[in-house]
Amino acid sequence: MVTRRDVDKETFRIFGFAGSLRAGSYNRGLLRAASELLPAGTIIDIRGLGDLPAYNADAQVESDSEPVQDFKRRIAAADALLIATPEYNYSMPGVLKNAIDWASRPPKVCCLRQKPVGIIGASTGEGGTIRAQLALRQVFVFTDSYVMVQPEFRVAHATERFDAASNLVDSETRERLRAFLVALVDWTNLVSRRD
Amino acid sequence: MVTRRDVDKETFRIFGFAGSLRAGSYNRGLLRAASELLPAGTIIDIRGLGDLPAYNADAQVESDSEPVQDFKRRIAAADALLIATPEYNYSMPGVLKNAIDWASRPPKVCCLRQKPVGIIGASTGEGGTIRAQLALRQVFVFTDSYVMVQPEFRVAHATERFDAASNLVDSETRERLRAFLVALVDWTNLVSRRD
Amino acid sequence: MVTRRDVDKETFRIFGFAGSLRAGSYNRGLLRAASELLPAGTIIDIRGLGDLPAYNADAQVESDSEPVQDFKRRIAAADALLIATPEYNYSMPGVLKNAIDWASRPPKVCCLRQKPVGIIGASTGEGGTIRAQLALRQVFVFTDSYVMVQPEFRVAHATERFDAASNLVDSETRERLRAFLVALVDWTNLVSRRD
Amino acid sequence: MVTRRDVDKETFRIFGFAGSLRAGSYNRGLLRAASELLPAGTIIDIRGLGDLPAYNADAQVESDSEPVQDFKRRIAAADALLIATPEYNYSMPGVLKNAIDWASRPPKVCCLRQKPVGIIGASTGEGGTIRAQLALRQVFVFTDSYVMVQPEFRVAHATERFDAASNLVDSETRERLRAFLVALVDWTNLVSRRD
Repeated sequence: MVTRRDVDKETFRIFGFAGSLRAGSYNRGLLRAASELLPAGTIIDIRGLGDLPAYNADAQVESDSEPVQDFKRRIAAADALLIATPEYNYSMPGVLKNAIDWASRPPKVCCLRQKPVGIIGASTGEGGTIRAQLALRQVFVFTDSYVMVQPEFRVAHATERFDAASNLVDSETRERLRAFLVALVDWTNLVSRRD
Repeated sequence: MVTRRDVDKETFRIFGFAGSLRAGSYNRGLLRAASELLPAGTIIDIRGLGDLPAYNADAQVESDSEPVQDFKRRIAAADALLIATPEYNYSMPGVLKNAIDWASRPPKVCCLRQKPVGIIGASTGEGGTIRAQLALRQVFVFTDSYVMVQPEFRVAHATERFDAASNLVDSETRERLRAFLVALVDWTNLVSRRD
Repeated sequence: MVTRRDVDKETFRIFGFAGSLRAGSYNRGLLRAASELLPAGTIIDIRGLGDLPAYNADAQVESDSEPVQDFKRRIAAADALLIATPEYNYSMPGVLKNAIDWASRPPKVCCLRQKPVGIIGASTGEGGTIRAQLALRQVFVFTDSYVMVQPEFRVAHATERFDAASNLVDSETRERLRAFLVALVDWTNLVSRRD
Repeated sequence: MVTRRDVDKETFRIFGFAGSLRAGSYNRGLLRAASELLPAGTIIDIRGLGDLPAYNADAQVESDSEPVQDFKRRIAAADALLIATPEYNYSMPGVLKNAIDWASRPPKVCCLRQKPVGIIGASTGEGGTIRAQLALRQVFVFTDSYVMVQPEFRVAHATERFDAASNLVDSETRERLRAFLVALVDWTNLVSRRD
């Protein structure tokens, strides 16, 4: 297994996905911004969740469908996950939870175990996905994933910070995102097992 | 609008759905048991969630797909909802949240506003969906739905209380479910607006 | 028991308490503002929590201390509770939870059972006590209390809406609080048992 | 600052406290059991919370009281915290939250920042403090503390696993606690900064 001991000699891989399927999603815009603000030596792989079927435990009896296999492979290959979550009904979107449900089974913790995770989110209202992010943290307790504790990254009042094409244009927010990504690499280095 | 003042002259309609798509789901078994344990004057409409697409806000620009329309119609027609939730990854299943995401938009609170809700759940482990149920309660704060506070209904160690065909056979648990349904009718009568 | 059937002929009693002991607390300021914005026919009883001892189950063996007895009596006498909570460490203050711990024991649900509750809160940061309020809602599931679902009332960026003496001076926020109190009376009338 | 690089040459210090003040508390019993099951090279410092005053921000203007100073000093001196929480009203006790409120202010994150934390809990009912532990995890997101993700440690049906003097006597549960403490030392070594 590649370890983080030698991270400075290697490419650091982030796998990013967003909880919204909407073309003009602010959260997909956050991932695009992240791809422009990556620390040196870091790459990001971004994937949509629209092709994942509804989770059905019966489907696992034989084998995962190709989209599910692909999703799991990208998680396994990543040094850290970057999840951009909108807030729907005071929680994470069903679409996002469904993707995690697939990734977590079977076996119980699969590729999510000890995986470093950064959670970000943008919303048009106040709070900027406070509730969705906390709900998501609880999910990763079960999967034994290592969600970065601080800093947190939220964007409230998104319409003021993204342009009409849902690109993140607010410079202060972009700097916060840049710093968040640096912290995520640091956190990953900290919590990666060295044995 | 039909009111609950005259509930004794009318049929009380419960709309039930479960968060699992698995054929042998204990939570679908709970809904079957509920259909056998209904209070007098009560009917239950049960629907699977497997045909609902992944929520995509762009899809709403024109109109809801037929499965989504059907799901919303059943919610609107019901006096109360009965939701049977498994616990996946310390929260509700993505499939269940996705269904609520559709029901809640647009408009914001749609047919869920002031709708009485009973939450039940079964799991093979300890706790019996404690976390999933609390996570679900938070969702219904946003939608302004009226989740019954007490009693709660959970089944832990489900393998001991359901048979091989996932039918609820434990008599004590069946009596608890019967009492829960009576309480749900009472709660619905209490919180239904009379104007 | 006094019922709400005849509320228009009677005084509606709100018992208010805040989770902060600080003299200049914004949340104590919210309660003062509430006392100025009460609907007709409504009175509010406000009490500090500073004299309640740390909850100790052993202390209950004999009898509650006088401050605890007084606190419970005011809850029992109220038609509805109005709780103003700051957010400390992403949750409610220990001081507030300690007061509820006393009120809830013994017996299990004591005077809190079926008691209507309105939750409000102010903070200097973003979110305006979003997390503390959700954490508090969970507590009242156990006690079988009836927390009003919507509207919610939060004040973010409190320094802009309160004066130097922590009085709520922002007129828009005052109108929201006025409407919240009307809604709390309505909610209480809705959920009060009539038998 | 002492680092964990050289942990095998040094004593590993755990600071333990429980959320209950009751003499016969099962959670205080858990801490006593922990003191008997420590990994080699580890010591535990246990302190009650009964002498901490109710948190009042005004009191900080001058200086912390002696009990608060003592509590903070023990946190600062510890390599990891071990918190035994009962579940009161579906959350942590007010007494426990009050202690954390003191420890977290001021400055904002004080001695809790980057501090490794293990959470354990026992209750007489089902679930074994599931909700209290999740509520506590949320608190430590704000303080930027590093709560061990897995394993978790809960004791349900405590009356069957403790004796009449509230000593943990169930051997399987003792082994789980022993393994939890080993994991906590490992987790602390993993997440301790080495600069």
